[in-house]
Amino acid sequence: MKDTPSHLPSYDDMLAAHERIRPYIHRTPVLTSSYLNALTGAELFFKCENFQKAGAFKVRGASNAVFGLSDDIAAKGVATHSSGNHALSLSYAAGRRGIPCHVVMPRTAPQAKKDAVHGYGGIITECEPSTTSREAVFAEVHAATGADFVHPYNDPRVIAGQGTCSKELMEQVENLDAVIAPIGGGGMISGTCLTLSTLAPKVQIYAAEPEQADDAYRSFKAGHIIADDAPDTIADGLKVPLKENTWHFVSHHVTDILTASEDEIIEAMKLTWKRMKIVIEASCAVPLATILKNPEVFQGRRVGVIITGGNVDLDTLPWIR
Amino acid sequence: MKDTPSHLPSYDDMLAAHERIRPYIHRTPVLTSSYLNALTGAELFFKCENFQKAGAFKVRGASNAVFGLSDDIAAKGVATHSSGNHALSLSYAAGRRGIPCHVVMPRTAPQAKKDAVHGYGGIITECEPSTTSREAVFAEVHAATGADFVHPYNDPRVIAGQGTCSKELMEQVENLDAVIAPIGGGGMISGTCLTLSTLAPKVQIYAAEPEQADDAYRSFKAGHIIADDAPDTIADGLKVPLKENTWHFVSHHVTDILTASEDEIIEAMKLTWKRMKIVIEASCAVPLATILKNPEVFQGRRVGVIITGGNVDLDTLPWIR
Repeated sequence: MKDTPSHLPSYDDMLAAHERIRPYIHRTPVLTSSYLNALTGAELFFKCENFQKAGAFKVRGASNAVFGLSDDIAAKGVATHSSGNHALSLSYAAGRRGIPCHVVMPRTAPQAKKDAVHGYGGIITECEPSTTSREAVFAEVHAATGADFVHPYNDPRVIAGQGTCSKELMEQVENLDAVIAPIGGGGMISGTCLTLSTLAPKVQIYAAEPEQADDAYRSFKAGHIIADDAPDTIADGLKVPLKENTWHFVSHHVTDILTASEDEIIEAMKLTWKRMKIVIEASCAVPLATILKNPEVFQGRRVGVIITGGNVDLDTLPWIR
Repeated sequence: MKDTPSHLPSYDDMLAAHERIRPYIHRTPVLTSSYLNALTGAELFFKCENFQKAGAFKVRGASNAVFGLSDDIAAKGVATHSSGNHALSLSYAAGRRGIPCHVVMPRTAPQAKKDAVHGYGGIITECEPSTTSREAVFAEVHAATGADFVHPYNDPRVIAGQGTCSKELMEQVENLDAVIAPIGGGGMISGTCLTLSTLAPKVQIYAAEPEQADDAYRSFKAGHIIADDAPDTIADGLKVPLKENTWHFVSHHVTDILTASEDEIIEAMKLTWKRMKIVIEASCAVPLATILKNPEVFQGRRVGVIITGGNVDLDTLPWIR
């Protein structure tokens, strides 16, 4: 496992990304809930990327990659492998630029996400739901098309794009003490670290992860990347392992990684729907689940919570069996 | 059936209501969806009262009634009968003022709404799910407590309060051609008429109603109030009939009443959840359902759509059977 970063994005790359992607993204709202504040004892500020174009923050990084390509490279299109939201975000961005987008996707991904990729014009090749299969199938697709590879989270262009979310959050909310976001491959957390380590270095950064896919937690404690093949969790966006670029940011700038059980994640997801009246994915309920589980860490503090996406298969909700 | 208004609120009553209730309500956001605009051919501006305090617009009228009471009358509390959101809104407002709130509620009302009324401190007495039973049980409760009766929609204080929603909408969105809202007893529509007939008389007002509870539609066509006892629809907030004050506004200021089937309402509800990532009740999906059904009425126009509430029982969604 390679732990040394290949090419890291800079703070200026993040600023340039924000200018580049502005026409293609929403400046998403920040919502609050007096009920959840009373319940947690913290002041929570939810940055609602479920309202983002294509339904997730991933359109930030995908758009930065797509619209940063020269015309001759762009002509061959872009390609990626993804558990879902990066796939449809890249399809959306490629569609806006009018270039092809090839996606390798686990056959077990939610039908809602497959339909959305098709809806944005993406071309899907299915693989088995393991990192090993995904990488093998992707190599074939990549070789056949010559498309530019946009990794869902390890790509420096993607990390710079995701960092624009925290930049907006800091413009929208004053005097935050901490920011918490879910962690899978680490793209959103890395972008958050990239932005806040320069813009607001006193703000603590927490990552939230499912117990059943806790490779980032174990990596953080061990001091080197530990990857699992095919972990199982309801938070389907968080199954992928850290890579060398995201590991760099996680290991240098994250205060702590907190975990939650499947039941705790589902409960926090339902609570958010019920009280905030917003549709969020299981993945982005993990931060609230960890806040409820570790009240002593957050009580009395102003905490930004990144709601990463809202692309849910409404026909199969985890609390209705 | 009495068709003559007892006491009508004025535009100044609405302005006074807005000042009175400001500390107790949210100025809710207006959301848009490029997907739904493309689908309907209209420009839709969704006034999101699902994000309102207590989860529905009804807190506007309820707060206006509660905070307008003199101290000696307030001391005996308030009482009402309601299919749901008025009950919990009045409980919320009474709780903020520190006075009791007595609620007569159908035993068939969603458990989520009963729980919410209890959560805000309301005292529930159950009745059968018919207008006849509701009024009989309420008379007993009212006599026993001496509480001030706040009718869920026919009360002029309530109509004036609901009118503040359209005032905000006109401040938030320029050059609207039309506003559409669901109609049950007609409180929101009457408040909309009250406000727009003075503030923006050229804006057309449409009401949207379930086919299976179309008493307002039939009243509008007949020219006098027609009431059904115990109609059946998924849009549980819209089962009640017009009364003389709301009939006044509907008959004088509404351009048309449009209806939608149960399947069309459920489809529009699910589409809103899926595309806009917001939790809305079936009742407030009726406007979108009628817009999709009558595209020629709305195409090319700027239309305000009032999303009336988000208090849904998440365990029993109508598209999961």
